[in-house]
Amino acid sequence: MTATDLFVDFLCPYAWRGVELAAVLRAQGESFRLRHFSLVQGNHPDNAGQPEPQWWLTDQAAGDGAPHQQSSLAAFLAARAAAQQGEEATWAFTLALFRARHEAGQPLDEAAISGAAQAAGLDLARWQAARADDAALRASLRQDLADAHQIGVFGTPTYVLPDGHAAYYRFDHLTRDPEVARERWNLYLSVLRSEAGIGTIKRAKPPKR
Amino acid sequence: MTATDLFVDFLCPYAWRGVELAAVLRAQGESFRLRHFSLVQGNHPDNAGQPEPQWWLTDQAAGDGAPHQQSSLAAFLAARAAAQQGEEATWAFTLALFRARHEAGQPLDEAAISGAAQAAGLDLARWQAARADDAALRASLRQDLADAHQIGVFGTPTYVLPDGHAAYYRFDHLTRDPEVARERWNLYLSVLRSEAGIGTIKRAKPPKR
Repeated sequence: MTATDLFVDFLCPYAWRGVELAAVLRAQGESFRLRHFSLVQGNHPDNAGQPEPQWWLTDQAAGDGAPHQQSSLAAFLAARAAAQQGEEATWAFTLALFRARHEAGQPLDEAAISGAAQAAGLDLARWQAARADDAALRASLRQDLADAHQIGVFGTPTYVLPDGHAAYYRFDHLTRDPEVARERWNLYLSVLRSEAGIGTIKRAKPPKR
Repeated sequence: MTATDLFVDFLCPYAWRGVELAAVLRAQGESFRLRHFSLVQGNHPDNAGQPEPQWWLTDQAAGDGAPHQQSSLAAFLAARAAAQQGEEATWAFTLALFRARHEAGQPLDEAAISGAAQAAGLDLARWQAARADDAALRASLRQDLADAHQIGVFGTPTYVLPDGHAAYYRFDHLTRDPEVARERWNLYLSVLRSEAGIGTIKRAKPPKR
């Protein structure tokens, strides 16, 4: 079975809920592949209206930019180092880090990243060795960012189905209930596959005062 | 039964399909009220990031601004003059004008507006007399624009359900089939009323080259 690509950014609480949803569906036999989209890059003013990104997260030195830019890059690279230990390790690390940030409310920093590696049961020595090869991790991250750009990903979570349908799916309420998760996923599929050719359903939001 | 408010702008082909959808559902007993949201105003640079609109379509002289701004204002005011002849007259005029523009491909001009009034079977003398009271029509349009702003409408069609749920619903394929329309509406309601608290489902769109 071909996998659904799931683009995420550790900064994003919606991505967290989207990863939890996919994790529940994986347990039911659905296949998802975790991929990375950078909100910092996607929203960067230098990239506004450009046909190709001018500003790449992967070109930034580790200590450059705003705190959320730095922690976003560090988290992506750490996840890619974890991925060298296999698919289950990737999921375990990704879930652990999203939960540390968005469920436990920790900052997205080295403590959270190391804690996630431990919680995920990674081979820590091997993971640290992989992290040291910064150039290789950046090259692999860059591929995801480039693919996300080609697809037109603009936010997380975005699921890209094997049949090519791809959409951002933003929801407020976490579920880990198998039945609820299945309904929620089926509703999303129904929207994407509707004969209507639905481009957008987006809630109106009263202006802030 | 309380009506669903449907915010439209005659400029917008998605609004056209949204009005056609509502018209089919009306024939099945659903209740909709046609209201106006201005895309020109909503997207005006003077209003970007402002808590209250600084630029109002209703403050523009009839001959001011780009052609689409002028025709948008003229169409709104003509529809409000038609509305003085009752709900059925409003629907007939609105459908006729949307079809002239987006189905027949006519420009949104005085010929299209007058043609829609005739096609709708309006009392033309009465309609022209109502159109002459420009200030009253603008005041009534302003109320819709102000309400749309409070609700957070940003595009058309936006449906505002009696229970307060409100969302933009953009789809590519016209339907006038009662069963298809019902399914399409039920899918929209399912998204808005899902326990997930769905804020957005929006398709990724590859960048233009």
